Amino acid sequence: MPEPPGLSYRAAGVDLDAAERAKKALRALVAQTRDEHTLSELGLFGGLYAVPAGYRAPVLVSSADGVGTKLKLAFLSGCHDTVGQDLVNHCVNDILVQGATPLFFLDYLAAGRLEEGVVTDVVRGMAEACLANGCALLGGETAEMPDFYAPGEYDLAGFIVGIVERSHMLDGSLVRAGDSLIALGSSGLHTNGYSLARKIVFEAMGLQIRDEMPGLGISVEEALLSVHRSYLSALRPHLTEGRVRALAHITGGGIPGNLPRVLGRGLGARVRLDSWEVPPLFRVLQEGGGVTADEMFRVFNMGVGMIVITAPGDAHAVAQELAAAGEKSWILGEVVEGKGVELA
Amino acid sequence: MPEPPGLSYRAAGVDLDAAERAKKALRALVAQTRDEHTLSELGLFGGLYAVPAGYRAPVLVSSADGVGTKLKLAFLSGCHDTVGQDLVNHCVNDILVQGATPLFFLDYLAAGRLEEGVVTDVVRGMAEACLANGCALLGGETAEMPDFYAPGEYDLAGFIVGIVERSHMLDGSLVRAGDSLIALGSSGLHTNGYSLARKIVFEAMGLQIRDEMPGLGISVEEALLSVHRSYLSALRPHLTEGRVRALAHITGGGIPGNLPRVLGRGLGARVRLDSWEVPPLFRVLQEGGGVTADEMFRVFNMGVGMIVITAPGDAHAVAQELAAAGEKSWILGEVVEGKGVELA
Repeated sequence: MPEPPGLSYRAAGVDLDAAERAKKALRALVAQTRDEHTLSELGLFGGLYAVPAGYRAPVLVSSADGVGTKLKLAFLSGCHDTVGQDLVNHCVNDILVQGATPLFFLDYLAAGRLEEGVVTDVVRGMAEACLANGCALLGGETAEMPDFYAPGEYDLAGFIVGIVERSHMLDGSLVRAGDSLIALGSSGLHTNGYSLARKIVFEAMGLQIRDEMPGLGISVEEALLSVHRSYLSALRPHLTEGRVRALAHITGGGIPGNLPRVLGRGLGARVRLDSWEVPPLFRVLQEGGGVTADEMFRVFNMGVGMIVITAPGDAHAVAQELAAAGEKSWILGEVVEGKGVELA
Repeated sequence: MPEPPGLSYRAAGVDLDAAERAKKALRALVAQTRDEHTLSELGLFGGLYAVPAGYRAPVLVSSADGVGTKLKLAFLSGCHDTVGQDLVNHCVNDILVQGATPLFFLDYLAAGRLEEGVVTDVVRGMAEACLANGCALLGGETAEMPDFYAPGEYDLAGFIVGIVERSHMLDGSLVRAGDSLIALGSSGLHTNGYSLARKIVFEAMGLQIRDEMPGLGISVEEALLSVHRSYLSALRPHLTEGRVRALAHITGGGIPGNLPRVLGRGLGARVRLDSWEVPPLFRVLQEGGGVTADEMFRVFNMGVGMIVITAPGDAHAVAQELAAAGEKSWILGEVVEGKGVELA
């Protein structure tokens, strides 16, 4: 097709037809995540989702998240579906900590130029993770923004809405001194600490994306792109039976930055460093960058993806049930009078 | 404070303390948007919002949007609150077209380095627009992503959730051939067409941000940063009384790209070009860039921010009521048998 005379949107770097084509290819993928509450298809202005019946006092729990600079690993490796999964699982965990199960998810994907294959891969990852978490991929925005993003790069944000019966809402108010902390193992860095990790791996250690992570037997790509774990299926049975008093998702800020968010005033935590072996990936990063232990704990999850707080008498049973559900879990420490997190 | 030895997160470009400080300053602003359904404060992992009572079959309507390259105008002008308003109003209009009133809003704000003043300005704009639309600013993510964004630049996405009684949901199924199209005037470009507009104004016309837009008596900044209009207050009284058969928010793709989204199979629209005078801003852009009329209509809203579809017998009364509510409104054309949009 000849270009129209004068300036056009295509000449300005925006290809509306390509965006339309990419959207069509995504529809089939996304359709798989629909459930009986999903009333709309992609293409409408807004996504429609019927509030499920059966709640006495339904509370919506929502969260917005990004993948952060883990995206740079996706750009380097050319693998774009895992960051889609990362984003959904991160969002799922963020509302899970308030007792909510997910209803629907929307994304925002922005690039200088939308590359159809990349968009499809990202959305496929999101759709797969939505399916696995029983969550509808209800819509999203794909924005072509010339001059904002370097060629081949994009940013990605997710937005999730879940639901919880008001009487089952977790807000930390049930936590008491003496309560037990149960750790659930992470699958890697999840989605935090990537600015530092990239600096260590690519600058201080001088590695490239396909190189082996020293001593780990896997590549940099495999080590750093491992998917953020969703704890929904393991924790769902525990959301309504009252034994879980609080949950803390270990994201940016690590254990010291996230655990206090669910401890009430006058409460702190003692985390026993001898209760687990920090996974080798974190040791390699610490040594590679000459990073202090404090800084490591403030930036990375150090092998702990989620912390479950229970009454001390319930801890062993809950930890065992979580292990039976396929999670690496262990008693990490306890809630104490005071404030902050002591790594002892 | 001395830097810890070895690499740190701060050295890698991420300043967690600055991010914390900015978050605190925002809390007071955001608190104003809370209503009786808002159960959470910022700082929790997820935002909590009680489903309002009184609906027989409540449907949640959600949308994700960005501001697009209008952000570049904010960067050039140093004015960051209006894009916050743009984003909220865009989202409000997107769910309004399905009959929904907003409940809550979350944002995603990403920058290479979070500048406290800029973040506060953006959030102040969002909080003001949320207040004006009766919508809680429930949370969000501010992401510091070194190496993603040019210094002084950021990206901004918004997520909104609204509610509608299922029997009042608008999905285009009520539209019939012969129905009337009522236009509601836009306040400028709203949030679409900025890649082309910037190319025309800054390249083809060689203007700078503080220069006068030729013949308009206002600066480039004023002309291009005017806030995306929210049509909620004008249309809210019409959402439940059955006279509005469909609404189309005129965003990317213009009238030809958006109006067909709410017309059923076998229906098109005839838009009468003599029914309104395209605002001078669009004439200046068209002449400045030597853009074809077709391309102008495909990229810009051309003065039409929203289209209301009613039965022909209701059109004049509805148009008059919208005018009385402060909107520029007129009969734009009609729904016809066929497909697509004819600009006649």
